[in-house]
Amino acid sequence: MRALVLKDDGPTFERDYPAPDQLPRDEALVRVHQAGICNTDLELVRGYAGFRGVLGHEFVGVVEASPGDTAWVGRRVVGEINIPCGLCEMCRSGLTMHCLSRAAIGIRGRDGAFADSISLPLANLHAVPDGVSDDQAVFTEPLAAALSVTSRAHVRPEDRVILLGDGKLGQLIAQVLALNGCDLTVEGHHPDKLALLERLGIPTHHGEIGDEEALADVVVEATGTASGFVAAQGRVRPRGTLVLKSTYHDLPSTDLTKIVVDELRVVGSRCGPFGAALRLLERGLVKVEPLIEARYPLEEGVAAFQCASQRGALKILLEM
Amino acid sequence: MRALVLKDDGPTFERDYPAPDQLPRDEALVRVHQAGICNTDLELVRGYAGFRGVLGHEFVGVVEASPGDTAWVGRRVVGEINIPCGLCEMCRSGLTMHCLSRAAIGIRGRDGAFADSISLPLANLHAVPDGVSDDQAVFTEPLAAALSVTSRAHVRPEDRVILLGDGKLGQLIAQVLALNGCDLTVEGHHPDKLALLERLGIPTHHGEIGDEEALADVVVEATGTASGFVAAQGRVRPRGTLVLKSTYHDLPSTDLTKIVVDELRVVGSRCGPFGAALRLLERGLVKVEPLIEARYPLEEGVAAFQCASQRGALKILLEM
Repeated sequence: MRALVLKDDGPTFERDYPAPDQLPRDEALVRVHQAGICNTDLELVRGYAGFRGVLGHEFVGVVEASPGDTAWVGRRVVGEINIPCGLCEMCRSGLTMHCLSRAAIGIRGRDGAFADSISLPLANLHAVPDGVSDDQAVFTEPLAAALSVTSRAHVRPEDRVILLGDGKLGQLIAQVLALNGCDLTVEGHHPDKLALLERLGIPTHHGEIGDEEALADVVVEATGTASGFVAAQGRVRPRGTLVLKSTYHDLPSTDLTKIVVDELRVVGSRCGPFGAALRLLERGLVKVEPLIEARYPLEEGVAAFQCASQRGALKILLEM
Repeated sequence: MRALVLKDDGPTFERDYPAPDQLPRDEALVRVHQAGICNTDLELVRGYAGFRGVLGHEFVGVVEASPGDTAWVGRRVVGEINIPCGLCEMCRSGLTMHCLSRAAIGIRGRDGAFADSISLPLANLHAVPDGVSDDQAVFTEPLAAALSVTSRAHVRPEDRVILLGDGKLGQLIAQVLALNGCDLTVEGHHPDKLALLERLGIPTHHGEIGDEEALADVVVEATGTASGFVAAQGRVRPRGTLVLKSTYHDLPSTDLTKIVVDELRVVGSRCGPFGAALRLLERGLVKVEPLIEARYPLEEGVAAFQCASQRGALKILLEM
């Protein structure tokens, strides 16, 4: 099958990559319709996690085979990315997302979705409602990641909330936060991306709000940069909540004493609830189509990655 | 001025009720455009809280006089209902909403809004954005009360949530809850009201979901009946959250041991954030117009109350 494979010398298009075979009874074979390039994919190419294999973890497709449960065959699906071992301490305590030896499709120990087909456990599948298009469904995984903010932190409707970052993930987090009625301002550095949010009625600010008065009850850090954490710390009120969405490759040098003295609550969040993401997409409450920057056929995956790695790029889709 | 006054023999229309005079510098005189009848008003008529005076606490109007701050004059406003003393232990600790000697317009110690004019403190006023109509703005107070659910309880996007009650307040709570992506089902007994929610894409169930499997992470009790609490207790999973919105006139006989054994979290909630309610109305995220059942001129206020007290009535508006 065709696939975009991360090798020692970078992402490579292969026409004859081995397709998944010998499907276990608890897995399904999914023919991929389209898939999205995420910042994590760019980091993998730069060496993050040492991954080698088929990239891609945001996708929508249709089930072609499912030996253990034929009811799935023909259904349009999206898939959760973590594959837990089921045996370790975390798995046994119900925290399968934190499985100590988990695989993650296209990220760790398991081929991903930038290919004609992908296999993954039935437990990872979510059927896509008829009213949700492929263009919407391909955003299920990043929208779920955005929903991890409100899953992990109690953001109250009366809270003043600052979101740092207007990128791909920031756009989705902003839309999720605005739905609860909170007094949200998005700070960013890209006028065109801030304009996307303004069109949805979400207040934005170009650059930092300098005013001390503007300390927020909740600050969400989604800049993707090491300096974001320090900036976020400066924006939250005493006893406020700081939600971290970026993964930091450098170690930010930060004044941890501020967390103690100001009695901050710092909350990390990673993957989120697919079911909730599909419900919001089905009800049209999150607008994802404006976030599509460009589409490439799978064959041009290398060029797609070059496009995605340009500063300010929104979502690049690969079509199979 | 004209006013609908609660007297010993019930609500009475008066043509020459004394208008507010000698306005303190920290208060405004508001000419009322329209006002809504709430279940609390019906309870007041039945004797709740022993109130006598002008009824009404849900309103929208325009500021006619504001000696302490003339910038308010001519602005369209809604108003928070609680008037704290500012001196008691609760007020000094910042919990003004729980002031031990608070007045509440149209409910306790202070005339309400079913009149040509009402006076209230500037601190209670919220300007209505231009994009929000009077028909929408008159729902600010009950929508804020609905938002008190998500203000007090952390409802997560992946939670299974059951809302008991499809009445006026239940309709607003359902819309607020659906915005966070949670797996919500509304249980009610009025097919026409459930149909209003289904049209908004919110799943409903006529009567109780009998299935044990259907235990929810969060149950919101908004039936307005004493039996609602017991029903709600039976629907929540161990360690789940039970949010109480009804005020109970009878004392429900309930098995409090279940709260202990199942480690339930029980959360009461009353008034909520006006700012968040106005933000949701401005963005069109909560649909209130379909909840308007009928409109009466103030002169026909007694007939309006009869209409409002019929079982299953939605919002009755009084127009000045």
